[in-house]
Amino acid sequence: MKIVVDAMGSDVGTSVEVEGAIQAVKEYGHDVILVGDEAIIKSELDKRGGSQGKITVVHAPDRIEMNEPAALSVRRKRKSSIVVGMEILKKEEADSFVSAGNTGAVVCAATLSLRMLPGVERAGIAIAIPTMKGRTVIIDVGANIDPKPIHLFQYAVMADAYCRYILRIPNPRIGLLNVGEEESKGTEFIKEAHALISKSKLNFIGNIEGRDIYVGDTDIVLCDGFVGNVILKVSESVVDTLVKMVKKEIKSSFIATVGALLANSAFQSLKKKMDYAEYGGAPLLGIDGRCIISHGSSTPKAIKNAIRVAAEFKTQDVNKHILEGLETY
Amino acid sequence: MKIVVDAMGSDVGTSVEVEGAIQAVKEYGHDVILVGDEAIIKSELDKRGGSQGKITVVHAPDRIEMNEPAALSVRRKRKSSIVVGMEILKKEEADSFVSAGNTGAVVCAATLSLRMLPGVERAGIAIAIPTMKGRTVIIDVGANIDPKPIHLFQYAVMADAYCRYILRIPNPRIGLLNVGEEESKGTEFIKEAHALISKSKLNFIGNIEGRDIYVGDTDIVLCDGFVGNVILKVSESVVDTLVKMVKKEIKSSFIATVGALLANSAFQSLKKKMDYAEYGGAPLLGIDGRCIISHGSSTPKAIKNAIRVAAEFKTQDVNKHILEGLETY
Repeated sequence: MKIVVDAMGSDVGTSVEVEGAIQAVKEYGHDVILVGDEAIIKSELDKRGGSQGKITVVHAPDRIEMNEPAALSVRRKRKSSIVVGMEILKKEEADSFVSAGNTGAVVCAATLSLRMLPGVERAGIAIAIPTMKGRTVIIDVGANIDPKPIHLFQYAVMADAYCRYILRIPNPRIGLLNVGEEESKGTEFIKEAHALISKSKLNFIGNIEGRDIYVGDTDIVLCDGFVGNVILKVSESVVDTLVKMVKKEIKSSFIATVGALLANSAFQSLKKKMDYAEYGGAPLLGIDGRCIISHGSSTPKAIKNAIRVAAEFKTQDVNKHILEGLETY
Repeated sequence: MKIVVDAMGSDVGTSVEVEGAIQAVKEYGHDVILVGDEAIIKSELDKRGGSQGKITVVHAPDRIEMNEPAALSVRRKRKSSIVVGMEILKKEEADSFVSAGNTGAVVCAATLSLRMLPGVERAGIAIAIPTMKGRTVIIDVGANIDPKPIHLFQYAVMADAYCRYILRIPNPRIGLLNVGEEESKGTEFIKEAHALISKSKLNFIGNIEGRDIYVGDTDIVLCDGFVGNVILKVSESVVDTLVKMVKKEIKSSFIATVGALLANSAFQSLKKKMDYAEYGGAPLLGIDGRCIISHGSSTPKAIKNAIRVAAEFKTQDVNKHILEGLETY
């Protein structure tokens, strides 16, 4: 198993990807190709005792920055780590790609280099979030901000395969995000998607609302990439705000401070449950290849887990199951 | 000042509205018309020592349930508290309307009975949420799930008047919710709205992202009613989920339980800050009249505050300022 890792993607930079790759080599035994500025990668490798023979380096001097326009930067920066990494995958010199870089650029490079699976019109990013009862997959969280109803049906099929073969959820329940539960609710786009998915053989439970997501009674939440992006960012921000507010309140009282110290174990355990690093990034589904997108603020552990999941997509042959799903449903 | 209150709206039912009305009469001295089942209202009034001369009752035997389709129920249930209450406003026998009932039905009845302000094409619901730095108004949170770019411009003007004259924010900063900060980001709808609002004289700070809302550096967040509805419901749900998770973690450890008891004052103070009841409901802006929509789970205090805000809309003549704003900007 050989995984290509974009070594210039994360906010912190190369050290995170190099450390994550070394951990993945030790823990899973996969081969890793690190793509990026060769001198920096080698220096980071040397600090950690060298490549151990399982890590190779491919030079790509350019970095696509987080705020660069996706399509333009992919077309112009042909020697960027994202474009060079994707080309390695295209030439079938590796099995999967992992990047914590500019999401739009990764989607664009993957779509241009690898193309779509036959029968899939648009790629979608699926992310598994923690809920009260386990994990729920939201698709799409930003690959396609203006989809057609048929794309939501294809997302449902792709997320179904992801749930079954990677997350080990046997018969995933699929909900369509709407402003109310009744069939009559929503925009024309949502009503058409509802009609389309209702007619399929998927395990469709109908419309769900924003308040239902974190309850965890739905395994897959379908929405357009605009709404999905907003959900993720608002959720992270509510958590951050609450934590900051609690800290501020606690500081204003001595007894509360003592209490907070005693309750600390509970907060730590909770934090671990909410930790995105445990979940190994978000697969870009629908492309004729395998690609995992990690959070820009990834830790080495997050990169290590992303490499694990990237390998599982190959072992489990998720793309084959997506193609079967498109025929079956 | 005379405020009509839908006495059949809230989830708990008439007792909440009657108690809220009595508190508002005592605290602000406004007259209140309670609309709903006369026998039930009178019995609730009697339990609390009668109407005190400032509360009158108008009989409306029907209730539009929370999940009934809005347009249909407004057309069919002509003797419902929402329809009868709105007719009282139309005949100018009262100054404002307050309802904790079916939001869609309130929007529909208001639009049909009272019509729009000249120059406004669609009504929008504005809600003031607590942030790290105070309050931020999100518009629209569900009146219009498929708006045109010009509607977002009109929402901006209306929310600007709401901020200036009710929330006392002198020069409100207006942000457009998008998936990135760059002008090039977003759907065609968002790009057109961006261009339109940029050309106006409004205090427009450009695109903002989901993660920026609770930071509180924007006073007004513009979005379509679908996205706004999802933001509100997801935010409430994240808070609920976190609280439940913390409680669960704490129960599993004795020391943590003791700590949590000691930290309790901090949580209580925080809870008060997040309490929607303090904010007195969400105005439906753009109609040729005054209407405040309260949460279905409103407490008497929430109803009392909604009555206060409903009166302020008249005193401050917000609608006049909206009309001026449409000309100025």
